[in-house]
Amino acid sequence: MQTTTTAGTENLTAFRTLINEIHDLNATQALLGWDLETYMPPQGAEMRGKQMATLATLSHNMMTGPQMDEHMTSLRLPGVKEKLSPVDQALVREVGRSYDKSKKIPVELLQAMVETTTEAHPVWVEARKTQDFKKFQPVLGRIIDLNRRMADHLGYEDSPYDALLDEYEPGLTVKQLDPLFARLKSDIVPLLKAIQGSGRAPETDFVFNGQFPANQQMAFSRLVLEAMGFDFLRGRLDLAPHPFSSGSSTTDVRLTTRIDEKDVFSALSSSMHEGGHGMYEQGINPELNRTPLAEGTSLGIHESQSRMWENQVGRSKAFWQHFYPKLQEAFPSLKSHSQEQFYAAINRVRPSFIRVEADEVTYNLHILVRYEIEKALIEGRMKTDEIPDAWNARMQEYLGITPANDAQGSLQDIHWSHGSFGYFPTYTLGNLYAAQFFSTARQQIPNLEQQIASGNLLALKDWLNKQIHWVGKSERAETIVQRVTGQPLDAKYFVDYLWTKYGEIFALSRN
Amino acid sequence: MQTTTTAGTENLTAFRTLINEIHDLNATQALLGWDLETYMPPQGAEMRGKQMATLATLSHNMMTGPQMDEHMTSLRLPGVKEKLSPVDQALVREVGRSYDKSKKIPVELLQAMVETTTEAHPVWVEARKTQDFKKFQPVLGRIIDLNRRMADHLGYEDSPYDALLDEYEPGLTVKQLDPLFARLKSDIVPLLKAIQGSGRAPETDFVFNGQFPANQQMAFSRLVLEAMGFDFLRGRLDLAPHPFSSGSSTTDVRLTTRIDEKDVFSALSSSMHEGGHGMYEQGINPELNRTPLAEGTSLGIHESQSRMWENQVGRSKAFWQHFYPKLQEAFPSLKSHSQEQFYAAINRVRPSFIRVEADEVTYNLHILVRYEIEKALIEGRMKTDEIPDAWNARMQEYLGITPANDAQGSLQDIHWSHGSFGYFPTYTLGNLYAAQFFSTARQQIPNLEQQIASGNLLALKDWLNKQIHWVGKSERAETIVQRVTGQPLDAKYFVDYLWTKYGEIFALSRN
Repeated sequence: MQTTTTAGTENLTAFRTLINEIHDLNATQALLGWDLETYMPPQGAEMRGKQMATLATLSHNMMTGPQMDEHMTSLRLPGVKEKLSPVDQALVREVGRSYDKSKKIPVELLQAMVETTTEAHPVWVEARKTQDFKKFQPVLGRIIDLNRRMADHLGYEDSPYDALLDEYEPGLTVKQLDPLFARLKSDIVPLLKAIQGSGRAPETDFVFNGQFPANQQMAFSRLVLEAMGFDFLRGRLDLAPHPFSSGSSTTDVRLTTRIDEKDVFSALSSSMHEGGHGMYEQGINPELNRTPLAEGTSLGIHESQSRMWENQVGRSKAFWQHFYPKLQEAFPSLKSHSQEQFYAAINRVRPSFIRVEADEVTYNLHILVRYEIEKALIEGRMKTDEIPDAWNARMQEYLGITPANDAQGSLQDIHWSHGSFGYFPTYTLGNLYAAQFFSTARQQIPNLEQQIASGNLLALKDWLNKQIHWVGKSERAETIVQRVTGQPLDAKYFVDYLWTKYGEIFALSRN
Repeated sequence: MQTTTTAGTENLTAFRTLINEIHDLNATQALLGWDLETYMPPQGAEMRGKQMATLATLSHNMMTGPQMDEHMTSLRLPGVKEKLSPVDQALVREVGRSYDKSKKIPVELLQAMVETTTEAHPVWVEARKTQDFKKFQPVLGRIIDLNRRMADHLGYEDSPYDALLDEYEPGLTVKQLDPLFARLKSDIVPLLKAIQGSGRAPETDFVFNGQFPANQQMAFSRLVLEAMGFDFLRGRLDLAPHPFSSGSSTTDVRLTTRIDEKDVFSALSSSMHEGGHGMYEQGINPELNRTPLAEGTSLGIHESQSRMWENQVGRSKAFWQHFYPKLQEAFPSLKSHSQEQFYAAINRVRPSFIRVEADEVTYNLHILVRYEIEKALIEGRMKTDEIPDAWNARMQEYLGITPANDAQGSLQDIHWSHGSFGYFPTYTLGNLYAAQFFSTARQQIPNLEQQIASGNLLALKDWLNKQIHWVGKSERAETIVQRVTGQPLDAKYFVDYLWTKYGEIFALSRN
């Protein structure tokens, strides 16, 4: 029996072609989704749904079909990996990950998930509208059962919740998350109490309750995105009911924002947030295009990029030193208030019911509430009828407030109706990664704060491109964090960031 | 051996599912094409090209694959047709048409056509820019050879050009076209001479050389499209470098227009033209969605809808009786000129070099030039180096003018560089169908002209919906013309329309 040196790799070109075609279908789906939220005529939804379903089916069939079976078998033969380039090794790893998951989950289970969540969405909308959790409870129960079955098929060591976390943040486990959230709870709850006890409450109406024409807000978002280095030759900014970013390649990345004409800050903040996501996609090595490596490596790392631009930059003193005079030019009513007053207003801290409106201090406490409840539900330690009470008790414990109804409480987020369990923790990971990366950036980029204060955001952008974006999904999140910051993820950077910043604003001393 | 009554039809559901999926891919391609021309970031083109190629390949594979082979074989068994509903019969006929063509043409020939035309496009752009036909000649020669080979594979009775015509207008032949063009030549050339001899030349600068802000032009286009009955809940109007319409279903039809701020008429005229195309797509029976029957039945019938709204309506006295005061409100500089002056200006007649700028009288003479040359090239009676002289001689004979260079002559149109031979005649067919349909509409709709003059365009729209649009592609063009007008296509309606309209404007008497 003869073995050649190419055994297992002779079909690499065919493998890459298949991957390219699957990626083209997925990129096309992304565009259909973007169009659905931006320019599609109102009555186009039904046909669009069918088109997206057809593309998803074709893509799934190609991912699990006999051609892919052959490639996966030969590319996983012993000794093959060593013959592949690092990029091809990563490609086989990431494609293999999706392939294995597709094979592990029975088609009927996938189908049941699609059908149940399709049914659940309008039920959730109605339940939230009427503030009645009981309406949503039965279908939510079925969604949780399906997720538990998913976890069983996918497999896990300690908790079934681990199998679901892995979907959004490869490798993430409860064992890693528990100490991170414990640290956040033990440090942030006292910070929040200290802030509330400071007696300081900044004036905010001039920012959030004025008159700021939509056109000018859009123009200002574009101006800031240009300054950040978002490339409009390879991207766009449009309006959509719910802001999102959508990338189909490094050369076509689309951001959306939403404008409230009373509020001069929210659209800009969401543009910077989505811009952070978009610049990640634009910054990936273009040679990875048309493969699953041309994506952010995980939801957590993706969110770190959006949150860094939104918060570490967009809510910083340095940033507004340069941009507040420009904002005042665009919106002259702001001339009545100083840069310091503006900075205080956009960094107000107050416990609130709705996660998406939460400030930097309280945000992760909202996630903690969801994390604990999701984990208990998936591990079978909580039943769906216990959710509202569990929610409200935690809100009271961590934030000191109790929702008046379920719409302000456990019905506020869309995620569960979509079937997504294990997604929320990636928001907190994003905040932690962002603080840790930014701490390193401050050490490595000379005079970073002064640069930002003079309106030069490109040094940071270039650093992120090089350190984080370029590798795309060819490196795992934990590898990137270790390489860039010299250590694994640690919540202390985020806690220090909060205490330093809010300690100054509210004149607190940390014990 | 037993036969059941369902033999041949037992897989009808599977056949329809396959057709639906193919149609979803094609509809998605249409959206990718629309996006390419409207909102895609400039540098997105390369990836977009790959996505479109992948979708085209998948769609082609599904159209010619083993599943389709089985369906086509069983659905074409003797006695099966009679068991199908009329719509399913039409579906099998139209799918079978595409299927047969796909099977007849070798993959290498298709591939060669794609490669050659991809190569040809920039060559044509450069040749036109430098006004040098010789640069384009070699690749054009290869495109013509490929088209002749296509024709040989597709098969024909009299002329190889018939095989190409059939691609755009099913069933159309040289034998039908020759007398139509002969009639146009014999009647229009004298009309043009009479107009030129009339000594009348309307004032036109107030329409074509003023200042008309883009926003207001766009708003006026929307106002007119609303009045026409174009449904903006199922469609859009956007800007694009070259106006087009693109429909992916009856519930999602997109029009584009182009605005010249000096010219108050051209954007509106092109919006009405594209609106006619779009209303055809919106007017099809929605039960035909996701099948190839949910399309216009032929390019000629499609063009009849656009030309009727553009010309029979949009260049009529009645239309402007209602809309000119509104146009004057939107663009006050027009208040210096009367409705009669405006009507005369938008109906000016003058021989010109460029087809897309031609008036109603000369337009079909431009097509005649192309028709005669294409036919001779495909039939092997003309060589590529003879094209410029052949072109110029015909321009002189029919229009009385000779292009100063090839950019004004045989290089002006994009069609040949795309590989399209046999397409041009459908423009003329559109004009002829439009006149014949409109003549019937005037008989069948009470007081049509008065209704238009009072701004009510919906009676015409409803008539077109019912008479022409509803059947989609389930009826062939010739069947529709016969059913609606009671006779086959006849050029006399168009010639009469021109003589009546322009006879009045230029005070001519027809001999």
